[in-house]
Amino acid sequence: MCGIVGYIGNQEAAPILLEGLSKLEYRGYDSAGISVFDGEKINVIKTKGKIKNLRSLCHDGADLKGTVGIGHTRWATHGAPSDVNSHPHLNAGETISVVHNGIIENYLILKKKLENKGYVFQSETDTEVVAQMMDYYFDGDILSTVAKVLARLEGSYALGILCADNPDEIIAVKKDSPLIVGLSDDGNFIASDIPAILKYTRKVYILEDGEIVRLTKDGVTIYNMDLEPVHKEVTEIMWDVSAAEKGGYEHFMMKEIHEQPKAVRDTIHPRVKDGKIVIDELHMSEEQLKEIHRIYIVACGSAYHAGVSGKYVIEQLSRIPVEVDLASEFRYRNPILDEHCLVIIISQSGETADTLAAMREAKKHGVRTLAVVNVVGSSIAREADDVLYTWAGPEIAVATTKGYTSQLAALYLLGMYLGQTRRTLSQEDYEPMLNELEILPDKMEKLLESKEDIQYLANRYIGLKNVFFLGRGIDYATALEASLKLKEISYVHSEAYAAGELKHGPIALIEKGTLVVGIVTQEALYGKIVSNLVEVKSRGAFVLAVTNEDNTAIEKTADFVFYVPKTLPLFTGLMATVPLQLFAYYVAVAKGYDVDQPRNLAKSVTVE
Amino acid sequence: MCGIVGYIGNQEAAPILLEGLSKLEYRGYDSAGISVFDGEKINVIKTKGKIKNLRSLCHDGADLKGTVGIGHTRWATHGAPSDVNSHPHLNAGETISVVHNGIIENYLILKKKLENKGYVFQSETDTEVVAQMMDYYFDGDILSTVAKVLARLEGSYALGILCADNPDEIIAVKKDSPLIVGLSDDGNFIASDIPAILKYTRKVYILEDGEIVRLTKDGVTIYNMDLEPVHKEVTEIMWDVSAAEKGGYEHFMMKEIHEQPKAVRDTIHPRVKDGKIVIDELHMSEEQLKEIHRIYIVACGSAYHAGVSGKYVIEQLSRIPVEVDLASEFRYRNPILDEHCLVIIISQSGETADTLAAMREAKKHGVRTLAVVNVVGSSIAREADDVLYTWAGPEIAVATTKGYTSQLAALYLLGMYLGQTRRTLSQEDYEPMLNELEILPDKMEKLLESKEDIQYLANRYIGLKNVFFLGRGIDYATALEASLKLKEISYVHSEAYAAGELKHGPIALIEKGTLVVGIVTQEALYGKIVSNLVEVKSRGAFVLAVTNEDNTAIEKTADFVFYVPKTLPLFTGLMATVPLQLFAYYVAVAKGYDVDQPRNLAKSVTVE
Repeated sequence: MCGIVGYIGNQEAAPILLEGLSKLEYRGYDSAGISVFDGEKINVIKTKGKIKNLRSLCHDGADLKGTVGIGHTRWATHGAPSDVNSHPHLNAGETISVVHNGIIENYLILKKKLENKGYVFQSETDTEVVAQMMDYYFDGDILSTVAKVLARLEGSYALGILCADNPDEIIAVKKDSPLIVGLSDDGNFIASDIPAILKYTRKVYILEDGEIVRLTKDGVTIYNMDLEPVHKEVTEIMWDVSAAEKGGYEHFMMKEIHEQPKAVRDTIHPRVKDGKIVIDELHMSEEQLKEIHRIYIVACGSAYHAGVSGKYVIEQLSRIPVEVDLASEFRYRNPILDEHCLVIIISQSGETADTLAAMREAKKHGVRTLAVVNVVGSSIAREADDVLYTWAGPEIAVATTKGYTSQLAALYLLGMYLGQTRRTLSQEDYEPMLNELEILPDKMEKLLESKEDIQYLANRYIGLKNVFFLGRGIDYATALEASLKLKEISYVHSEAYAAGELKHGPIALIEKGTLVVGIVTQEALYGKIVSNLVEVKSRGAFVLAVTNEDNTAIEKTADFVFYVPKTLPLFTGLMATVPLQLFAYYVAVAKGYDVDQPRNLAKSVTVE
Repeated sequence: MCGIVGYIGNQEAAPILLEGLSKLEYRGYDSAGISVFDGEKINVIKTKGKIKNLRSLCHDGADLKGTVGIGHTRWATHGAPSDVNSHPHLNAGETISVVHNGIIENYLILKKKLENKGYVFQSETDTEVVAQMMDYYFDGDILSTVAKVLARLEGSYALGILCADNPDEIIAVKKDSPLIVGLSDDGNFIASDIPAILKYTRKVYILEDGEIVRLTKDGVTIYNMDLEPVHKEVTEIMWDVSAAEKGGYEHFMMKEIHEQPKAVRDTIHPRVKDGKIVIDELHMSEEQLKEIHRIYIVACGSAYHAGVSGKYVIEQLSRIPVEVDLASEFRYRNPILDEHCLVIIISQSGETADTLAAMREAKKHGVRTLAVVNVVGSSIAREADDVLYTWAGPEIAVATTKGYTSQLAALYLLGMYLGQTRRTLSQEDYEPMLNELEILPDKMEKLLESKEDIQYLANRYIGLKNVFFLGRGIDYATALEASLKLKEISYVHSEAYAAGELKHGPIALIEKGTLVVGIVTQEALYGKIVSNLVEVKSRGAFVLAVTNEDNTAIEKTADFVFYVPKTLPLFTGLMATVPLQLFAYYVAVAKGYDVDQPRNLAKSVTVE
């Protein structure tokens, strides 16, 4: 999380840094700051709160003159959000300025050592240690100093370093935290993510771990840890600039909710050819696919929920047992792996630290990995054996919507592909299923037309405290995701339960007026979940049901019903999730919260 | 859920029924009632609320004269708790009285049919339909009438029936809901569970599905559905009567928390012989045990959490992949089963409806089932291929404590036994592990000595709203159980998270003063979870840590620490759970709640 940007060139740096930070704000925003070299010294302005606070403090950059600078927007890990803990950090002499993403794991030991040498620290952060170490080891040559410091750091980092004694360059390095370099005729850039610099250039280097970059206004040189120059290809970014703008919507989240039919269509349609699913990116032979005897799906957050849904789809279509694991658990639990396992990794950003580490753990055991990722060239995409991209385009809102639904689409493709290859899915079932898969985006479009019904309901529920989402089977996966959405942006304590489980304890929390959302798309289980809804209703709950358009019988039980177009039972996640994304959105808006940048959260979690 | 009791004999029935109901009250208590035949007609007294309301309404039974009667305590499924929905129910002529546990699934169809015949209904319950059907089909012979009615019922039921035209008998039947018959020289009894009649007799018949019983004051005859007499063995109950009394504690829950060392000892010690684990009850050959290639653990509620813990233990010791499933999900999700799978079923009562149905589903696929059960002779114990009993004695409090920890002990035994048989657990590791297993009960005793520390803390937290329990690895299983305890009896919205997952969304709910409980017993992961605790602390959370006695470094991070005796990482569930049971207990007591009988809940959930 956190965002880094840096610029060296012919223009004034501060406005460029502020513009870049505002594009990164979705990655972390409890404090922000910039450093610019004014020809004599480094000036720093930083503050708790959002970029707009920083903007007004420095008069949109006018207070910081100079053409070389670095900036940062922060999501606190070590040290509470405060002015003093904000980045950039300086050495005591104020000649070296550092911005940092990641966590320096051995910072306490390093800090103690420097304190013994007489260094005095201003902040509680791990980052300040880097600035002071740069000072301690400084030998006149900033590149060789950086190499010495790096050799002593443990943990993950992307660093941008500005030095008053070498003011014609910026140094940047990365390990286990993303960093890119942007190239233009008018100067060069560093950034932790593409949107920060998309306005200025589409030509970038995507840095690998252990690479050290020296940027001047005229050029960029990349070195390895031994300071030998490294040759690197320039990557051209194909994104539409407008993809990173709100395009008429009040929030990115609403824009992205509406982009879902397109995201799902773009993910599915290129892979359907002549009545078959073709996944060109998958380099496993038919033989290899047939030999798979267990699949692990490994992910965090919403991507984990996509995995829970994917388990049902893949198991039913391919009859391969699937276990879904949280990445932070998988990597430490010594899972049972052998050469006939397949590990499917799901991550929108492709940079999620736990997920990346879990993938590396699987690879260490010699297990094949397949990544479902949205960001091309991200760490997970680069390191996985195979990648199945979701073509959702850039996702800016912290709470994922199109990222999630396009992951579902990718897993449907994969389930059908495995079923087709392993002949567990009959041709008779396959054809209508494929037809249905192709028209899912149209059904999603239709669904979005009745969003006002959800808005009406959400406005009645501004005051809600506890919410329970219930579902059985694949509807339980949808319940998990719906509950997380509401938590993330509305700060309502919601929780998802497999509907049959509620009476084994949680029903104690149901009282008059508690909102219970029943997700009811599995025709074979209609009666079972209705029984559970009757149980909560008889204890005073208000029941909202999301169900198929033909299940009007539910009106006898539910207080409010939202109907979704009917599809095959395995594909209902794409239908039932959307109204509940809208519900979370409208509740948050009605409560006056900042939907795109909820408190405490960051877009892609690049620390453990 | 719900409780049934019936008596026919020489004594006044009402006091015996009230006494029996009070022993069953933990099974359901939103309303209660009794019917007694006074020589001329059936008199009914029933009311919303607890047994004590009923007692005062009928002057401890003095208002209801007669020596034959039936009684009921209810946990609402169809129709809200109210006087009119309480049992017993009568036909319109008030000549037939019925008490019922379970759900009549086709009651709406049956009700409509009777309404077309001119019957008028007083209540919204499915049970009243049975009383009115008894009336409609009555042919002078109550036995043959019952057989006609049963043929038309779908669903689950235990029924007690009293008829003014045949006042010298009680008829009882059961299907998928437990019912026993008690025999004494002074009269005979029916009851849904043993404690109701333990004061009067230890001789019982445990009824099978489809059996119809006719009780008179002098004898009991059991018939099958064709009304042919069935021979049945009398079972002698070996429980100590005091086991169903509070024994000086203020609540059953506190008594049962203190019985945990004994429950765990009684579960473990008889199975350790000559330095080896011997499970005589397990009838699987060494060959069969070696051929297992996948285990499913299937359970509900706390037993499911025991399964989550058991997965770690069994996978690490035997290297067999284990999937833990909610019973209500397993039975409908078409799981991938073959003859080399083993399904482990966990249920304290052995009567949990979803769990029983899931076991039957597994058996239908020809898969071997092993039940971990506490109640001898319960449905699950009878139908499983093998049973590994937890010897915890009767558990009365609705929130399980010793039931849960003795399940953990049984799973430790099973994991080590599989590891020993399959040679995945080396002799070198086995011996110290076995020694440790045997002294776990002593460590639990030691732990209980510092319960006042928890009481102190709980009293500070009466006002708490949202609580998060965090753990990594096996500590996550403990977090799940700790969170459920707090929910069940304190009505606090608590939630458990794998600690690494919090930052992927739920951290948005953390604000100043939110209580976060970190469970920190896995030495290899100390640093990782401390990072997560620091993240919530920097956002204002109050952090309570439960950790090993030697991990004093945690005091730098946590606001309050509860230390537990150190044991092997796989066995820590038995240590860390206990203080958190106490925490839930003390919070509930401080809030003035009825700990043993929380609202909306019932002890064993015998409906879906």
